[in-house]
Amino acid sequence: MISVDEARAHLFDLVSPQDVETVALAQAAGRMLARDAVAMRDQPPFAASSMDGYAVKSAEVEQHAIFKIIGEAAAGNGFSGTVKPGQAVRIFTGAPMPDGADFVVIQEDTDRRDDLLTITEAPGAKSNVRPAGVDFGIGDRLTAPRRLSPSDVALLAAMNIPDVPVSRQPVVALISNGDELVMPGDTPGPDQIIASNTFGLKALFEDVGAQVRMLPIARDTTSSLTTALELASGTDLIITIGGASVGDHDLVEEVTGALGMERAFYKVRMRPGKPLMAGRLGKAAMIGLPGNPVSAMVCGHIFVVPLLRHMLGLANPLPEICTAPLTAPLPENGPRAHYMRATRTGDGIAAAGNQDSSLLRVLASSNALIVRPPGDPARDTGDTVDYIPL
Amino acid sequence: MISVDEARAHLFDLVSPQDVETVALAQAAGRMLARDAVAMRDQPPFAASSMDGYAVKSAEVEQHAIFKIIGEAAAGNGFSGTVKPGQAVRIFTGAPMPDGADFVVIQEDTDRRDDLLTITEAPGAKSNVRPAGVDFGIGDRLTAPRRLSPSDVALLAAMNIPDVPVSRQPVVALISNGDELVMPGDTPGPDQIIASNTFGLKALFEDVGAQVRMLPIARDTTSSLTTALELASGTDLIITIGGASVGDHDLVEEVTGALGMERAFYKVRMRPGKPLMAGRLGKAAMIGLPGNPVSAMVCGHIFVVPLLRHMLGLANPLPEICTAPLTAPLPENGPRAHYMRATRTGDGIAAAGNQDSSLLRVLASSNALIVRPPGDPARDTGDTVDYIPL
Repeated sequence: MISVDEARAHLFDLVSPQDVETVALAQAAGRMLARDAVAMRDQPPFAASSMDGYAVKSAEVEQHAIFKIIGEAAAGNGFSGTVKPGQAVRIFTGAPMPDGADFVVIQEDTDRRDDLLTITEAPGAKSNVRPAGVDFGIGDRLTAPRRLSPSDVALLAAMNIPDVPVSRQPVVALISNGDELVMPGDTPGPDQIIASNTFGLKALFEDVGAQVRMLPIARDTTSSLTTALELASGTDLIITIGGASVGDHDLVEEVTGALGMERAFYKVRMRPGKPLMAGRLGKAAMIGLPGNPVSAMVCGHIFVVPLLRHMLGLANPLPEICTAPLTAPLPENGPRAHYMRATRTGDGIAAAGNQDSSLLRVLASSNALIVRPPGDPARDTGDTVDYIPL
Repeated sequence: MISVDEARAHLFDLVSPQDVETVALAQAAGRMLARDAVAMRDQPPFAASSMDGYAVKSAEVEQHAIFKIIGEAAAGNGFSGTVKPGQAVRIFTGAPMPDGADFVVIQEDTDRRDDLLTITEAPGAKSNVRPAGVDFGIGDRLTAPRRLSPSDVALLAAMNIPDVPVSRQPVVALISNGDELVMPGDTPGPDQIIASNTFGLKALFEDVGAQVRMLPIARDTTSSLTTALELASGTDLIITIGGASVGDHDLVEEVTGALGMERAFYKVRMRPGKPLMAGRLGKAAMIGLPGNPVSAMVCGHIFVVPLLRHMLGLANPLPEICTAPLTAPLPENGPRAHYMRATRTGDGIAAAGNQDSSLLRVLASSNALIVRPPGDPARDTGDTVDYIPL
């Protein structure tokens, strides 16, 4: 058995970075910027007023000074003349500063009678002028790789980048495996349960930016599993779920072996999720996840999400590790890393009482996984532990 | 001017809860569960083995005990007979426990010769049996309202709920307003800039679960703004951006007034974002956001995101408030609440040096907004402050 870190390193070796494609800016949020975006213009492109008021020469600004108003500058419609001594231009937020003016007296500090302006309050030292390029200048970059946030998208718009180079979304095939499974909405037989892993994993991987194809459930026969794996043709990552314990994993091994899989590893020193396997199958990477619902979802968080982020080009694809004090003690850990379903509150963090890997309700009510290294000693209330937010 | 809390209360009064609609489970992630989901079955529906091994009677389990293997129970294909004293059934993870058996000796603790089984290691006290209903039972609920996570979706699948009642997505119309604006990809005139707010806000509101319609830019004329507002017909929330300062807000006020807007408030004691206005326009709520890019995005986070969550039915729609120690001092705050662009690191939090509301680069590189109440005194390094994660 190998460690979690070793397994991740093997997984990352199985894939290549995704190609680059171009998407419209309105579809770019959440996508991974694949090449630096470079500003082709200054923002603002001209010195602009940051307030509504009157544009004048700063040397003339003092309480009780009087100016003649010679025109107006609005956003999008600047004043074309030049401000001379004793003159002022009515100006609105975002308007270009008129030539000759370098100070905006805010409206609240003035009194206007027809075209005569008086500064009634002592203006502060602030010019209320935004210099050209104060937000960004030509050549400034939004650096790739970077998952684009709403604010990033606004910035790209301001940079006038209507089409954005992003990493192509990894296409993931999900194959549940087992005679015991039926799809939601079907009527299960007496020995059957509802397939839940594919639905949870689809949502999880789509959140990271993958495109997910949910394939038909593969039965515990060579022909059924072969058919499902053939349907996965053309995807970047094939994930089988279930059949991952001692007995029936043989089938996944047998069928993928017959299809030419090169196995990278089998079994990881962790729980839940020990019977993880991975390799290459044709042009795709392949991961065999365990079938217990919680094991499948935890392995999705610990292995598949980082792998997808790595495929998308993120420099640091590993889960964020946080720390918090325990609000309840933990027993000594065994020889495998343990990812314990837990609840993080303002006071600290506590592991769920029942860590059985079949309990979806416990997982759904958890918001964190406490990470316990192999052989971690017993921990007391108040001890600081590592966790991964869910 | 009213406070941020007062403004939010007014906003919440402008809307009604969204209708309920049904979506397919595969599309339910990220949607707001609108009614409790109730389990119509137990999970597991039968006592099941949690390991690969041999199902026997617990009273007979001891090291060196010998059993006759009488059959096999696999997931989806249980054993139909009854286990009698001295008998064992080969069993795989997830298989129903055979009648008469209440203990699974794990495979690693046994030795099998043809149909004879010997327990070679002393088995622990753990039965390795999952009782029927240990995950959930008939009548157990996933309680609404709740934004559905990937794990929730897996749980709903396991509950055999193929169609999920969720809140209808609020439809939001975005109208940028101003002669200075052109769309990304266009060539701006000498006094013009690129419209960026609508792109950033669209991404932000879609993240919360809204459907966003980006309407044509409204020019600074009555007819252009009227046309844009008429295009917003049928939406739940109309958002105008820009024209929100002293001078040209008159136009938004004039045009929406002519269309029958009932104003709820105008101006909020905050920065950035003071010139926020809101009301009802026909069947829709309407918000006028300020036009400075950072003001628009901050008001999106502080007002529109909570409003959308409230429309979707979330009981606690307000932004999450966290605390962190300052890594740099802050000057005294003025009479308005201040939402400062900031960076949260492992060490603490620090406000960006330039808080001008035009700086999209500063916003895009921030991951938090420090929340400073009106009149907050100067703060030292090490003082704890409130912040909203971005």
